[in-house]
Amino acid sequence: MGSRENGGPIIALSGGVGGAKLAVGLSRLDLGERLLVVANVGDDFEHLGLTICPDLDSNTYALAGLNDEEKGWGRADEGWRFMDAVGEMGGENWFNLGDRDLALHVLRTQALAAGGSLSNVTATITKQLGIKAKLVPMTDDPVRTMVQTADGALAFQHYFVRDRCEPVVTGFEFKGIATAMPQADFMATLADPHLQAIIVTPSNPFVSIDPILSLTGMREAIAAAKAPVIAVSPIVAGLAIKGPAAKMMAELGMPSTALAVAEYYGGLLDGFVLDHGDQDQADAVASLGIEPLVTKTVMQSLDDRANLARDILAFAESCRG
Amino acid sequence: MGSRENGGPIIALSGGVGGAKLAVGLSRLDLGERLLVVANVGDDFEHLGLTICPDLDSNTYALAGLNDEEKGWGRADEGWRFMDAVGEMGGENWFNLGDRDLALHVLRTQALAAGGSLSNVTATITKQLGIKAKLVPMTDDPVRTMVQTADGALAFQHYFVRDRCEPVVTGFEFKGIATAMPQADFMATLADPHLQAIIVTPSNPFVSIDPILSLTGMREAIAAAKAPVIAVSPIVAGLAIKGPAAKMMAELGMPSTALAVAEYYGGLLDGFVLDHGDQDQADAVASLGIEPLVTKTVMQSLDDRANLARDILAFAESCRG
Repeated sequence: MGSRENGGPIIALSGGVGGAKLAVGLSRLDLGERLLVVANVGDDFEHLGLTICPDLDSNTYALAGLNDEEKGWGRADEGWRFMDAVGEMGGENWFNLGDRDLALHVLRTQALAAGGSLSNVTATITKQLGIKAKLVPMTDDPVRTMVQTADGALAFQHYFVRDRCEPVVTGFEFKGIATAMPQADFMATLADPHLQAIIVTPSNPFVSIDPILSLTGMREAIAAAKAPVIAVSPIVAGLAIKGPAAKMMAELGMPSTALAVAEYYGGLLDGFVLDHGDQDQADAVASLGIEPLVTKTVMQSLDDRANLARDILAFAESCRG
Repeated sequence: MGSRENGGPIIALSGGVGGAKLAVGLSRLDLGERLLVVANVGDDFEHLGLTICPDLDSNTYALAGLNDEEKGWGRADEGWRFMDAVGEMGGENWFNLGDRDLALHVLRTQALAAGGSLSNVTATITKQLGIKAKLVPMTDDPVRTMVQTADGALAFQHYFVRDRCEPVVTGFEFKGIATAMPQADFMATLADPHLQAIIVTPSNPFVSIDPILSLTGMREAIAAAKAPVIAVSPIVAGLAIKGPAAKMMAELGMPSTALAVAEYYGGLLDGFVLDHGDQDQADAVASLGIEPLVTKTVMQSLDDRANLARDILAFAESCRG
């Protein structure tokens, strides 16, 4: 590997909290603007007249060090007076919007109403918050995930928050995906001959990563990219670290295993990162033609995040070698 | 006076905090829906993409008992995490929006965007908050007060909050007033033959009351109403109880006195209420053909508010007699 390649950009495809943890790990390796975090927008929704982008926001707060480590989502030192008052006035209060968090939604909604793009408002806010990495939405066009269930289709946040992931999932639809243009910096970076790695973070394959992969031309652009594609398993020892990934896999008739995730991504991947707890699946991953890496993938401390990020970049280098 | 007349409606024309204090006093006289509080909307403005109606909101919070007595504006137990975060993200933060207060602006903006009228959203929220009086905006159409100053025209909140009333005032313009339809319940109540009193609360004559009086046909409708018009002086001993009324009077070349307020309202009034501190001006008020009432107009306690309200209603009765 020449130094030019080592200095090339790194793309991380991310959903919310799980992806943001790895994005933080990568950002701690002093990559600066070389790190491009691409966030899913399928979770985005309009609520109380505001445009809310949970995955962009989880990444923004995590990269700015403003996230709540203890609660695992949202901002630290958050308050709930707004929600109290919304309830008191009879407004919809099934989705928790913290007092601090609200500022991002209000400023974004105002900027979008004034004709700004989601990319521009995200760039303005991340710069203002001192974030060195580039964080972009997968597209500036609205894409909205619908969760198909036995009882009909649900908008993602209705499924995820209001109904607490209880309905049995039968499939997904990404409304707007056919006409959504992949974000410009994302596409340009995929085409960069110095691209060093494309990392699929341990976010939910179905509702965090699939919307990104489903953009028109995206699988082709990733396949054509001059960098290995490395996914980190969101399933460890049969359980999802966070969220409904394992439950969805069971409902979709898949085993809830790291191996099943590797099979699901299939030919997209050059490498797959499993936790020590799943090392017995490494050979089966290799037999899919995907290089396995067994390491510690569960990120508790900030050091865990940086260590996993470092392992992944070294692994990417070896996949290219 | 027959009992029918005693049971008739009472209209209070109100600006923000000062008017809301008297509205609360009136509401404590068990008038129920007989009390119609008409709020100025000239102070309304669009900020951070939200429609903010400070005078409607001051009345809403005061009538619901949610206002901050100590601070003198806004809501009790208010928080400022939203404002902190807005500042941190580089948003406009010259206008303080409390975390609880924000709920009203967000719910209203959402309802207006969905095609609701300001009257409807106000009715929904005041009902939800258990307010028995009727509170309506002077109009459902946008009217925006511009303050003319030596340095040019300023939107009201820029003058009032951002520039802290510092610019020297030369006049006022109520943008949109020519085409604004007076609110329907307001007009119907003015025409009610059982109307008992029209009370001009001790709000700022120029920027709180004048916008209401400047609605097309309003002065004629008030003159034709079957009830005395009673104003309460916002000036006591040459000072405004709150806000820039006295400063504006000086800048407009008027003496800063209760008498000058009575002269300013002139033929509109049947009665004028002065504080004990200004009883030396009562004869001069009478010589204008306006009945004076000297009483305690400074409202500190809740009892002060109810006592003043009771005095005004008795005075109105005597003016009709």
